[in-house]
Amino acid sequence: MSKTAQEYVQTHRDEILQDLEAFLRIPSISAVPAHKAEVQRAAGWLVSRMQAIGLERTAVIPTPDHPVVYGEWLGAGPHAPTVLFYGHYDVQPIDPEEEWLSPPFEPTLRQGNLYARGVSDDKGQFYTHLAAVEAFFRADGAPPLNVKFLIEGEEEIGSRNLGSFVQQNAPMLACDAAVISDTSLHDEHTPSLVYGVRGMVYMEVTLEGPKSDLHSGQYGGVVHNPLQVAVDILSALHDQDGRVAIPGFYDKVRPLSEEEKASLARIPFNQRRFLRDEVGAPALWEGEKGYSVLERIGARPTLEIHGIRGGYTGEGQKTVIPAKVTFKVSMRLVPYQDPHEIARLFEQQIYALAPNTVNVQVRTLAQAHPALIDRNSPAMQIAARAYRHGFGAEPVFSLAGGSIPVVTMFDQILKVPVILMGFGLPDDNLHAPNEKLRLENFYRGIDTSIHFMSQLAARGK
Amino acid sequence: MSKTAQEYVQTHRDEILQDLEAFLRIPSISAVPAHKAEVQRAAGWLVSRMQAIGLERTAVIPTPDHPVVYGEWLGAGPHAPTVLFYGHYDVQPIDPEEEWLSPPFEPTLRQGNLYARGVSDDKGQFYTHLAAVEAFFRADGAPPLNVKFLIEGEEEIGSRNLGSFVQQNAPMLACDAAVISDTSLHDEHTPSLVYGVRGMVYMEVTLEGPKSDLHSGQYGGVVHNPLQVAVDILSALHDQDGRVAIPGFYDKVRPLSEEEKASLARIPFNQRRFLRDEVGAPALWEGEKGYSVLERIGARPTLEIHGIRGGYTGEGQKTVIPAKVTFKVSMRLVPYQDPHEIARLFEQQIYALAPNTVNVQVRTLAQAHPALIDRNSPAMQIAARAYRHGFGAEPVFSLAGGSIPVVTMFDQILKVPVILMGFGLPDDNLHAPNEKLRLENFYRGIDTSIHFMSQLAARGK
Repeated sequence: MSKTAQEYVQTHRDEILQDLEAFLRIPSISAVPAHKAEVQRAAGWLVSRMQAIGLERTAVIPTPDHPVVYGEWLGAGPHAPTVLFYGHYDVQPIDPEEEWLSPPFEPTLRQGNLYARGVSDDKGQFYTHLAAVEAFFRADGAPPLNVKFLIEGEEEIGSRNLGSFVQQNAPMLACDAAVISDTSLHDEHTPSLVYGVRGMVYMEVTLEGPKSDLHSGQYGGVVHNPLQVAVDILSALHDQDGRVAIPGFYDKVRPLSEEEKASLARIPFNQRRFLRDEVGAPALWEGEKGYSVLERIGARPTLEIHGIRGGYTGEGQKTVIPAKVTFKVSMRLVPYQDPHEIARLFEQQIYALAPNTVNVQVRTLAQAHPALIDRNSPAMQIAARAYRHGFGAEPVFSLAGGSIPVVTMFDQILKVPVILMGFGLPDDNLHAPNEKLRLENFYRGIDTSIHFMSQLAARGK
Repeated sequence: MSKTAQEYVQTHRDEILQDLEAFLRIPSISAVPAHKAEVQRAAGWLVSRMQAIGLERTAVIPTPDHPVVYGEWLGAGPHAPTVLFYGHYDVQPIDPEEEWLSPPFEPTLRQGNLYARGVSDDKGQFYTHLAAVEAFFRADGAPPLNVKFLIEGEEEIGSRNLGSFVQQNAPMLACDAAVISDTSLHDEHTPSLVYGVRGMVYMEVTLEGPKSDLHSGQYGGVVHNPLQVAVDILSALHDQDGRVAIPGFYDKVRPLSEEEKASLARIPFNQRRFLRDEVGAPALWEGEKGYSVLERIGARPTLEIHGIRGGYTGEGQKTVIPAKVTFKVSMRLVPYQDPHEIARLFEQQIYALAPNTVNVQVRTLAQAHPALIDRNSPAMQIAARAYRHGFGAEPVFSLAGGSIPVVTMFDQILKVPVILMGFGLPDDNLHAPNEKLRLENFYRGIDTSIHFMSQLAARGK
C-alpha cells in the first residue's frame, strides 16, 4: 500500500473535489437529444483530465450515439497486473426540476452530502479511481500496476453500443480484473461486494382469436375471449408453491451452498423497514417457498408479467371481446440458466397451454446471461480487504436481483473477475431529484481504490 | 285483418317509400355534437309526419340531450286494446365515410336493397308501423285499436334519458302490448321473435400493491406483482367446466324446459358458417359444458374480461412491476338473476380470492335486469301469426345474448308483453358503412304490422 498516495489525497481533498465539481457542472444527459453537445463536452473534459493525470492513448471514441472515453497507462510493464475501470459519464434527466433543493448541475454541499445530478450515478463513483491513479502519479511518480479506463456515455439509455465496442476492442481492454463502481454500499455501515447478477429473457406473446372485436352480449360464452386465454395461461405459469411452472425451467439453476446461504443470512436486512419504506405494499409476497427474501431477489429465477394489452381499459364501460391480446413477460435468470434455452422452454410451454381457439405468436424481445463472480478469487478477496481498509468495516457478499449488462459483457467477453465495488448509498436518489453522494464516502472510495491497486500489484499477476 | 289497409299499401308503395327516403336524408347522428340541429330536425320531421297521418297529442319532448317524439291515437276507446310502438330516430356516425358505395344520407336502391345510414337501425324498421297506421287511417278511416308511438333520439348513445322518461310518463305510455322493431330476422327465410334478453352487471376492480412502480429485477420474487394477482383472480372466476366460479352465481338461473330446449334446437343454425363468417376465430369455445351454442348465447349467464390496465404495453420492453392494476369484467345475466345480488356475490368472491399483498376496490359501473317475455302470451302468439302472414314463414322464438335496456324498462315499468319483431337481416351493416334494408322486407313489415294490429283488435282487451 502506498502511504504517500494516501497522504496526497489527505492533503489535496479540496483540489480533487473542485475537479469533480467541474465535471458535475456539465449536464451530460444522454437521453435528451438537445443535450448531445453537452454529452460531447463531458467526454472532452474527461479525456483532458485523463491526459493531465498522466494517462496515455487517451481518446474520445465515437459510436453511433454518444462516444466512449478511453485512457490507459501500461508503464508497469507486461509482468505487472492490469486493472480495467469501467464507469459512465452520462447522467439521468432532471425532471421534475422544481423538486431539486439546489440546481442539479450546481454541486452543493449540505450536511456532509454533495448534491448534484450524476454525483452518485456515476461521475462521483468512478472518479474515485481516477483520483486514486492521480494520487499515485503525484505521490509515487506512477501507479504500481497497469490501469485502463473505459467510461461510456450511454449507460442511462441502455448501453446500446457498448457490447459491440467491447467485442471489437477486447485486446485493448484485456486485463486481470475489472472494477465497476456503479452500485452502492449495503447500508451506511456495510460495504457490499456484488458477486452475482441475474440474467434476463423478455418475451412477448400475441393471441389472436376472432377476426375483429366482438360484442360480449352476442358472442360471450361461445367465442373464447383472448383475454380469458391470456389470464389462464399467465396464471398457469406459476404453481401453488410460487415456483415458475415451465418444465425444465429450474434444471440448470445453481443451488446455493450451505456456506453461501449462511453468508446471505448474515447480511443485515430489516424486512419490516424494507416493506414499509421501500415497497409500500400491504404485505410482502411469500413467493417461491423455502427461500428467504434475499435469496429470492438474487439467487432464484423469477417470472414477472409486465403488461396485458387488448380490449378496453379507458373510463367507463365497453363490452368488447378483443380480437387480439398481447402480453409481456420477463424472466430473471441465475447461473447456469441459459437465456436462449429458457426462451425456448417458455415458448414450448405457451404452445402447450394455449387452446385451439386462438393463434399464438411468441417473440423474444431481449436476453442477457446471468453472471457469477468467484467470491474466492484473489481479486475479490483483495477488494474485500481494500473495503475493510477504506471503510473500516467487513463487506457483505451480495447477489443483485437486476441485470447489469456490462458485468455480463466483461464476464463473457473479457473473461476476468468483475469487482462490483460501490461507494454510494441505497437512498442516493439515483434517477430522482436531489441525487447525492456522501462526501466522506467519496474520499473513502479513493482510499479503497488506492489500497486495492497496491494490494493487487503486490500480489503480482 | 284489414284487406283495405293492405290494398292501400299495395297501391301506395312509392309514396310510402318517398316519405321514408325524406326521413333518411336527415343526418340525425346523436353521437356527434355538431349534428345536434339535425337530430332536432329529424324529430320535427317525425312529429309533422305523425300529425299528417292523423295521430294526436304529438309532441317533441325535450330531455337533457336529444328529444323524445311522442304521438298517439286513442279513438278506438277504452275497451279496445292499446299498442305502444317504440323506435329511435337517431343514427350511428358514418365513418369510415370513404367506404360507402353511395352517400350515407342519399337513400339508394341497389339489387332490391335500400342503402342509407339508419335504414335498418332504426328509421326504416319503426316506420313500418307508422305506415301501417297511416294505411288504416286512409283505407278504413281509423286504426282498429289505440296506438301510441314513443320514438327516442338517444338510442345510439345509450338511451341515457329514456329510463327516467318512461318512469315519469308511465301513465301516458300505459298499453296492452309494446312492439319494438329494432332487431332482425333470424335469416332471410326465418322471422324471429326474441322472447328474452340478458341483463348485465359491469364491474371494475382495482388492485393496489407497492406504493410506486417497481423494477422487476430488484423486487421480482418478493413483491407480489398486482398483474399476477389480477390474472390469478381472473383465471379463478371460471372452473374447469367453463362455469362461472362465483358461489351462488347460478342459484336463481331459470332452467330451460325440455320444450324450450327443443324449440331452440329447431332454430336453423350453421355452426361452421357462424365460425367462419361471423367469428373468424380458429375454433369456437366449448364454454359452459352441457349447453349448445344458442343456449350459451341466450339462456346461460356468462362472465367476460374486457381489459386489464397497468404496467407497460407499448413497444419494446420495460421491466416494471406496476403499483396498481385495474380490470373490467361484465357478466350477462338471465332470468331470474338479480344484477344487484350478482354484483354483491362478485365482490365477495373478489375479496375471497385476493391475497393480503394488495388492497382491493370493487366498483359497479352499470347494471341491467334480464327480461323474459311469455312466449305463450296472446300478444306473442298474435305476433307469430302476423309474421306468418307477412313473411309466409314460421318464426322462431329466440333468446338474445345482448342486453336491450328498453325491453327491460318496458318489462319492469310498464309490465306489458314486449314484442321484439324485427324486419332487418343479420348482415344489414348496422354501425358500419353501407347500411341497408331489403326493400321487400320493409313492405312485408308493414303488412305484418297491419295484420298484428287487426288481430290484436279482434281479440279485444
